[in-house]
Amino acid sequence: MSVYEKMHPREIRKRIRNGEITNSTAGMSKGYTQVNLVILKKEYAFDFLLFCQRNPKSCPLLDVTEIGSFTPHKLAADGDIRTDIPKYRIYREGVFTEEVSDITEYWEDDMVGFLIGCSFTFETPLLANHIPVRHIEENCNVPMYQTNIQCEKAGAFEGPTVVSMRPMTHVDAIRAIQITSRYPAVHGAPVHIGDPSQIGINDLDNPDFGDAVTVKEGEMPVFWACGATPQAVAMQSKPSIMITHAPGCMFISDVKDEVFSVL
Amino acid sequence: MSVYEKMHPREIRKRIRNGEITNSTAGMSKGYTQVNLVILKKEYAFDFLLFCQRNPKSCPLLDVTEIGSFTPHKLAADGDIRTDIPKYRIYREGVFTEEVSDITEYWEDDMVGFLIGCSFTFETPLLANHIPVRHIEENCNVPMYQTNIQCEKAGAFEGPTVVSMRPMTHVDAIRAIQITSRYPAVHGAPVHIGDPSQIGINDLDNPDFGDAVTVKEGEMPVFWACGATPQAVAMQSKPSIMITHAPGCMFISDVKDEVFSVL
Repeated sequence: MSVYEKMHPREIRKRIRNGEITNSTAGMSKGYTQVNLVILKKEYAFDFLLFCQRNPKSCPLLDVTEIGSFTPHKLAADGDIRTDIPKYRIYREGVFTEEVSDITEYWEDDMVGFLIGCSFTFETPLLANHIPVRHIEENCNVPMYQTNIQCEKAGAFEGPTVVSMRPMTHVDAIRAIQITSRYPAVHGAPVHIGDPSQIGINDLDNPDFGDAVTVKEGEMPVFWACGATPQAVAMQSKPSIMITHAPGCMFISDVKDEVFSVL
Repeated sequence: MSVYEKMHPREIRKRIRNGEITNSTAGMSKGYTQVNLVILKKEYAFDFLLFCQRNPKSCPLLDVTEIGSFTPHKLAADGDIRTDIPKYRIYREGVFTEEVSDITEYWEDDMVGFLIGCSFTFETPLLANHIPVRHIEENCNVPMYQTNIQCEKAGAFEGPTVVSMRPMTHVDAIRAIQITSRYPAVHGAPVHIGDPSQIGINDLDNPDFGDAVTVKEGEMPVFWACGATPQAVAMQSKPSIMITHAPGCMFISDVKDEVFSVL
C-alpha cells in the first residue's frame, strides 16, 4: 500500500499543490471523504444549485463556495479548489478543451465551486461489511452507464441520470441497500437492482464511462446514482466555461466518511 | 376528530382556496406531509437556497419552484402556493405588515417559493412508536426557542438556529433519536438533549415562539432544529418583500410522510 494511504488530507493537498502528486487520488488518506468538483460562473449558479437540490441522489452537495471564493469551508478550511486537485478539465460551451494541473489563472471573481459526494465514501463501509467491490478487486475504474432515468430539470440543466454498477450476490445486495441508505449525502440507496434493460442499459460489458467488470454467476448488478451525472448534465447545457476534476483525481476533504452516516 | 383528518390533500387545498378552511391545518389529511413556506424575489434566491443547503437540519428543502412559478411540482402538481394556504404573512424590509388569505395580488414574476420540511412529519412515527408528544397531549403549539447555535452564513442570510422542544423519558429519547434520524428531510435527529443552558436557553417555561409545555419529573428536554429558523433568518436580512405561511397554517402536500424515511 502507498505511503499516501495513511497521510492526512492536509499533507496530501500540500503535495498536490506542490506538483508532487499528479495523478489519481484513489486510496489516499483512507477514511477521509473525497469529492467531485464542478465550477461554474454565477449566472449558472442558482439553476445548478437548484438542479442538485432536486436530484440529491446523483448530486449530493457536500459544500458550495461563496461566489468568488475558492475555499470549501465545510470540507477543508485551508483548502483551495484552484490548486488542490491533481488534474482539472476545462469545458468551453460544453466542449472539453484542455486538462491542467492548476486553475489559478482560469479563476474568475464570479465563479462558484460545487463539491459533490462520491461513491468512494460508501465503498469503505461496504468493504468493512465484507461485501466485495468488484472494480477494486479488478483494480480498475467503476463501470458507469447512461440510463433512461431523467433527472428533474432546473432552468437550463436537464439530462439522464448516470449510474455506477457493482455486481454482488443477492444477500450482499440486501445488506448493501441497508448500508448505503445510511449515507444519503453520498448517493444513498441504489436506484435500481437487477435487470439493466429496465433502466435503458443494453450491454453491461460496454459502460459509457469507466471500465467493464466481471459479473459472476448468481450475482445481480446493483446500480447507484453517480456523481458523473452533474458533470454530464452541466456539459450538455453548454455553459461558457465549466471546470471539473479529471476522472479519479478528486478533492480530498478533512471530513471522515463516518460523519456522513445518518444512522 | 375532524372530518378533515381523513380527507385527501387535494380536497383540503380546494377548500382552502374557496375560503371554506381559514385556520390551522394541524391534524388535516393525516399521514400526508405538511410544509413551511418562504417566498422571496429572485435577487435573494441563490443566497437563500445556499443557506438552506448549508443548514439542512433547520432548513430541509422539500421543493423549490422555478423562478416565477407558483407550482410545487414535487409536492403537489396541481397545487398553487398563492392560494392553498389558509393564512399568509407579508414582511416588508423584515417587518410584519399584513396577514392575508390569498397572495395572488402580491405575486411577482420573479418570485421563488421554498417549501421546507416540518416536524409534523416525524411526530407521526413518534406517536406510532408510543412516544407521547406533550404539546399534542396538551393541545397547544410546540414550544420553540432561539439558541446560541449559529447557522452557517450564506450571503446576506445568517442568524441563530431556532429549536422545537419535546420532553420525554430517557428511554423514549433514545428511541426518538433513532426514529428521527431516519427522516433527514424533516429536520432529522435532535440537535441537543438535556441541559438547555448549553445551547443558550435559560427558561424552558418562556419559549420564544409557541407555548410552554409541562416537563414531568424524570423527563429530559429533546431539541430539534425548527422550520421557524429560515423564516427568522430571512426576516433578519430584511428583504424588500418576503411572504410566509402564518404559524400552524401549512401547505399540505400530496406526499405521504413515509416517503421521507431513508431507512
